Amino acid sequence: MRPRLTTKDYIDGILNGDRMVLSRAITLVESRLSGDRELAQQVLMGVLPHTGNSSRIGITGVPGVGKSTFIEVFGQHVVSMGKSLAVLTVDPSSQRSGGSILGDKTRMEVLSHHPLAYIRPSATGSSLGGVAHRTREAMLLCEAAGYEIILIETVGVGQSETLVRSMTDFFLLLMLAGAGDELQGIKKGIMEMADAIAITKTDGSNRPLAEQAVSEYRNALHLFSLSESGWNAPVVTCSATENEGIGEIWDLIQNYLTLIHANGYFHKSRQNQNVDWLRSLIRQQLEDRFFIHPEIAEQWADTEQAVRSGVELPLPAAQRLLHRFFKEE
Amino acid sequence: MRPRLTTKDYIDGILNGDRMVLSRAITLVESRLSGDRELAQQVLMGVLPHTGNSSRIGITGVPGVGKSTFIEVFGQHVVSMGKSLAVLTVDPSSQRSGGSILGDKTRMEVLSHHPLAYIRPSATGSSLGGVAHRTREAMLLCEAAGYEIILIETVGVGQSETLVRSMTDFFLLLMLAGAGDELQGIKKGIMEMADAIAITKTDGSNRPLAEQAVSEYRNALHLFSLSESGWNAPVVTCSATENEGIGEIWDLIQNYLTLIHANGYFHKSRQNQNVDWLRSLIRQQLEDRFFIHPEIAEQWADTEQAVRSGVELPLPAAQRLLHRFFKEE
Repeated sequence: MRPRLTTKDYIDGILNGDRMVLSRAITLVESRLSGDRELAQQVLMGVLPHTGNSSRIGITGVPGVGKSTFIEVFGQHVVSMGKSLAVLTVDPSSQRSGGSILGDKTRMEVLSHHPLAYIRPSATGSSLGGVAHRTREAMLLCEAAGYEIILIETVGVGQSETLVRSMTDFFLLLMLAGAGDELQGIKKGIMEMADAIAITKTDGSNRPLAEQAVSEYRNALHLFSLSESGWNAPVVTCSATENEGIGEIWDLIQNYLTLIHANGYFHKSRQNQNVDWLRSLIRQQLEDRFFIHPEIAEQWADTEQAVRSGVELPLPAAQRLLHRFFKEE
Repeated sequence: MRPRLTTKDYIDGILNGDRMVLSRAITLVESRLSGDRELAQQVLMGVLPHTGNSSRIGITGVPGVGKSTFIEVFGQHVVSMGKSLAVLTVDPSSQRSGGSILGDKTRMEVLSHHPLAYIRPSATGSSLGGVAHRTREAMLLCEAAGYEIILIETVGVGQSETLVRSMTDFFLLLMLAGAGDELQGIKKGIMEMADAIAITKTDGSNRPLAEQAVSEYRNALHLFSLSESGWNAPVVTCSATENEGIGEIWDLIQNYLTLIHANGYFHKSRQNQNVDWLRSLIRQQLEDRFFIHPEIAEQWADTEQAVRSGVELPLPAAQRLLHRFFKEE
């Protein structure tokens, strides 16, 4: 068994860029054990002053769009310029995605062996809020370890995108051409969050379809209101296998960052990210404390079922559980 | 001063369809006075068994799209068929909308005098969750009073749409043709929530623009995933001043309701609405209790400012406030 690290071991290790310590620290903040919580908080508190210096990029797209292949090639482009890169994935173990932790690691084979790259698939549970909470903390740990670019990957079929959007500077949506857009299961709102859409697998016989998709998505994006950042989301094509369009995506992200640094949106957005985090921490911890309360945990499934089937009404059910939680009986 | 009504007075009055009592009951559930809360809960508990029998329709669109004029004419169509109708508006007092309570009442002049119609603009505060909470309760009171159709109007520029969507059976988005889509400020995700889009003011020289808008929105909607209800959201035109297309919108809502009653989605959706309500009641009451706590209320503005400006980090700030709330110091 590995010796337990002290708070100082964790903090020093992270700040020195020790990957092994970084990985253990992420495992620590992801832990559901109440005994790990205090240590996790202390580690985070210790490294927080060293965070906030990376470019945070969210990447999403449905299973099959080629996210891992894209990140493998895009990531190599990033590290080839001497930039260090951390890749975090949200809900790879989702039943719907069919992705797997081992699968992701294997697929990013070249990138995962590069000294400037760190890849961390998060083993996530079922709690959505929990995912984002831990992802934000994992991101901060990576920043403290000195990674300049953080990529956060989500599977693009759930609500985690909204949360990842709220913690990143740039949000890239990957789409397939000609797969039947309905089949791609684009979730409500995800397209409109995108700072850019990239049509993947634009190679060989796919090219004409991809060009058509570009024009369709451009028209669709045109219908949305101008984003507060002053940026018009572009629609581009790329092919990871042919290494085409990858550098262009990196360049447009740089253009975006230059724009929002110049017009003050970056600063404002980071300030908002902090307030968002404060509010989401409070919301989440209130809910966490509620749902892990032994009596609530015991009664929740039955209550939800009773409300769903109409046996109990939502209002009295909520009152009953809240009185119990606040011990008002 | 009006005499204070008892719980029984409220319940009997509402179930008898007494509009004066209904109005006072809505004012009661909207009240922020803690002394009114218990009475409000008892009234709601008393009428809840008599709710759930209306068709709940959400209507949204940005200021200027002609919502009030549309509802005035659409509402007259509904009552002309002998159906009773309650119209609830969310955040008419919003600074952004520029709408006003009196303005709304005046604009729906004919409808508001019809014996089958009840119009209730909600005077709302700043709390978003609060708006939706009270709107759902106002809707239930109207259902208990026997209204067969409930229209819930939102201004279409905020997040209230998501919440209104989660408590209605059908969501109609009103859009202007040729106003420059960017200027319409369609908020992220709203378009994708729509069960139908109606292009308003399709009359006179506006017609060609409206037809063009129909084809653009059809293309855009085509990009989204098929809704779980099995319904393809249509894009139609209408003119309230010429009374064109209004009956067609009513008919398509009926078609939609027939479809979802037949395929079981209505039942499932109502069950989900109940579970949503349970969860949102718990979430909201946890937050309400947190933010009305005297010590939290006193410290909140300073804490938020400290976090925004980077003087305090979100994590310790959240811990500090939560410890105070749960009296763990």
